Amino acid sequence: LKVFSLNSNRKLAQDIADHIGTTLGECTVSAFSDGEIQINIEESVRGHDVYVIQSTSSPVNQHMMELLIMIDALKRASAKSINIVMPYYGYARQDRKARSREPITSKLVADLLETAGADRVITLDLHAPQIQGFFNVPIDHLQGVPLLANHFEKMEFEDIIVVSPDHGGVTRARKMADYLKAPIGIIDKRRPRPNVSEVMNIVGNIEGKTAILIDDIIDTAGTITAAADALVENGAKEVYACCTHPVLSGPALQRINDSKIKELVVTNSIPLTDDMKSDKVTELSVAPLIGEAI
Amino acid sequence: LKVFSLNSNRKLAQDIADHIGTTLGECTVSAFSDGEIQINIEESVRGHDVYVIQSTSSPVNQHMMELLIMIDALKRASAKSINIVMPYYGYARQDRKARSREPITSKLVADLLETAGADRVITLDLHAPQIQGFFNVPIDHLQGVPLLANHFEKMEFEDIIVVSPDHGGVTRARKMADYLKAPIGIIDKRRPRPNVSEVMNIVGNIEGKTAILIDDIIDTAGTITAAADALVENGAKEVYACCTHPVLSGPALQRINDSKIKELVVTNSIPLTDDMKSDKVTELSVAPLIGEAI
Ligand SMILES: Nc1ncnc2c1ncn2[C@@H]1O[C@H](COP(=O)(O)O)[C@@H](O)[C@H]1O
Ligand SMILES: Nc1ncnc2c1ncn2[C@@H]1O[C@H](COP(=O)(O)O)[C@@H](O)[C@H]1O
Repeated sequence: LKVFSLNSNRKLAQDIADHIGTTLGECTVSAFSDGEIQINIEESVRGHDVYVIQSTSSPVNQHMMELLIMIDALKRASAKSINIVMPYYGYARQDRKARSREPITSKLVADLLETAGADRVITLDLHAPQIQGFFNVPIDHLQGVPLLANHFEKMEFEDIIVVSPDHGGVTRARKMADYLKAPIGIIDKRRPRPNVSEVMNIVGNIEGKTAILIDDIIDTAGTITAAADALVENGAKEVYACCTHPVLSGPALQRINDSKIKELVVTNSIPLTDDMKSDKVTELSVAPLIGEAI
Repeated sequence: LKVFSLNSNRKLAQDIADHIGTTLGECTVSAFSDGEIQINIEESVRGHDVYVIQSTSSPVNQHMMELLIMIDALKRASAKSINIVMPYYGYARQDRKARSREPITSKLVADLLETAGADRVITLDLHAPQIQGFFNVPIDHLQGVPLLANHFEKMEFEDIIVVSPDHGGVTRARKMADYLKAPIGIIDKRRPRPNVSEVMNIVGNIEGKTAILIDDIIDTAGTITAAADALVENGAKEVYACCTHPVLSGPALQRINDSKIKELVVTNSIPLTDDMKSDKVTELSVAPLIGEAI
């Protein structure tokens, strides 16, 4: 068994290797002068089960091509099996045709990985679990909820409610609530008529409670911060938030800092770059979780 | 027949559309906040033969993913055939395992294009003609030499010699020389012993002649400018240079401006960005050539 890291999650890859008691394989991932990716695997992989750690986080196209080229190199170097560990699966939100003539990029990504030579995929909290069906190779779908729930459990809040920031996330909120033995609430947004602004209605009794918002991805953080502020305005005692994948693009960090959220708990499926760090953001490691799955 | 442009060569795409007497199809290629590519095809393509113009020039991974996602969208929108026009085929230089455990990225690219749904590929001066064999779909391989030769023909030089800057390009130089009814020369670099610096030997009689250097790709321009300076030092009257694909990365422009090259003639397979422009660089359009092939 050999574990290699590409450029997206070097720290996590090291932690995974430590967890399973091995060292990272030697491999240089650099760029030629014109920006083309150059990969040199510096040790034999012939006959080995190889694990490659890479999230297709931003810069997504760069990370995607690194991964595809690495798989090609491993295949041609006669690896016995090529196992892809993608803590964050980029392009997952493009998983259906919402309008005419849209691509289904998350299916394309699955096909590209298989074409390059992936034999198995390990991933975490896919935006839609249906993406598992886009693959013909085995896919292990890990869950971040226990890790996130565990963090809040240790805080021993008096009276909690787990809140989904939209309809799509209710199943996830339910799972979290089971761990925390808490009720659930839903932020129920709707537009009464076209061209009339959205009304934010809160389903569930939040009065005086500690609300824990949960989502899979926090990207620009518009949804989650609006939800947090609405919860406080409507009587919640305090609001915490958590997600598996901290994309945190554009105005995200500013919005979180300015919001009523007391703490945002995330995993290192996407590492926090320096400009994504804040006293409000706590990062939990998925290394043990992934280590077990390998 | 419908022609669409992605982001690499919008001007060339417009010229190709003009040449064949059509307008460009409407299509928005933009990015979400996190950098993921969003493509919206704004008109029906059902039952149409579709041509997509895109070079995988820098930023290569971005341009590559744009192309793959566009192909996916066209396929799902029931295009009758999807024809890819790649004036510049990125990653072409990674076309064999020069060392152990290297990828063969140009074969990977061929597989990715077919997986996405490409039915035919039109390209120009592949770094190695063998790359045609990496495809199972039809590939049209156009030649830039006539266009470049024509430019020099019109200059009516007295006494010319076409020079290849290395051994690999002799066939190309021979073709150019046929057009110009000129002899050929070769810059014959070799290293007499390991760890002894290269000796640049010129094969062919350049004394008092106008030398025309030809290559397929000029990237950092180290080879071509060293060749030009050696030609002048060894008695050539003047030196011109040409190539099909002006990658011109890193120190390229500075080197060209500082060199003995009087004029560098290139095609618009890769458009010259503002920082790639110089009085010494002349750009010829491959729009008519590609227009004919469509
Ligand atoms: N990277 C992205 N950033 C923002 N929105 C996206 C992204 N990728 C896809 N989408 C859009 O998000 C919607 C799907 O999100 P959801 O409804 O939460 O499943 C679709 O309408 C997509 O067009
Ligand atoms: N984008 C690139 N820039 C510079 N060198 C490259 C690039 N891609 C591949 N190469 C190297 O160029 C060599 C092939 O060039 P050639 O010998 O001219 O066919 C191989 O050793 C490659 O590793």
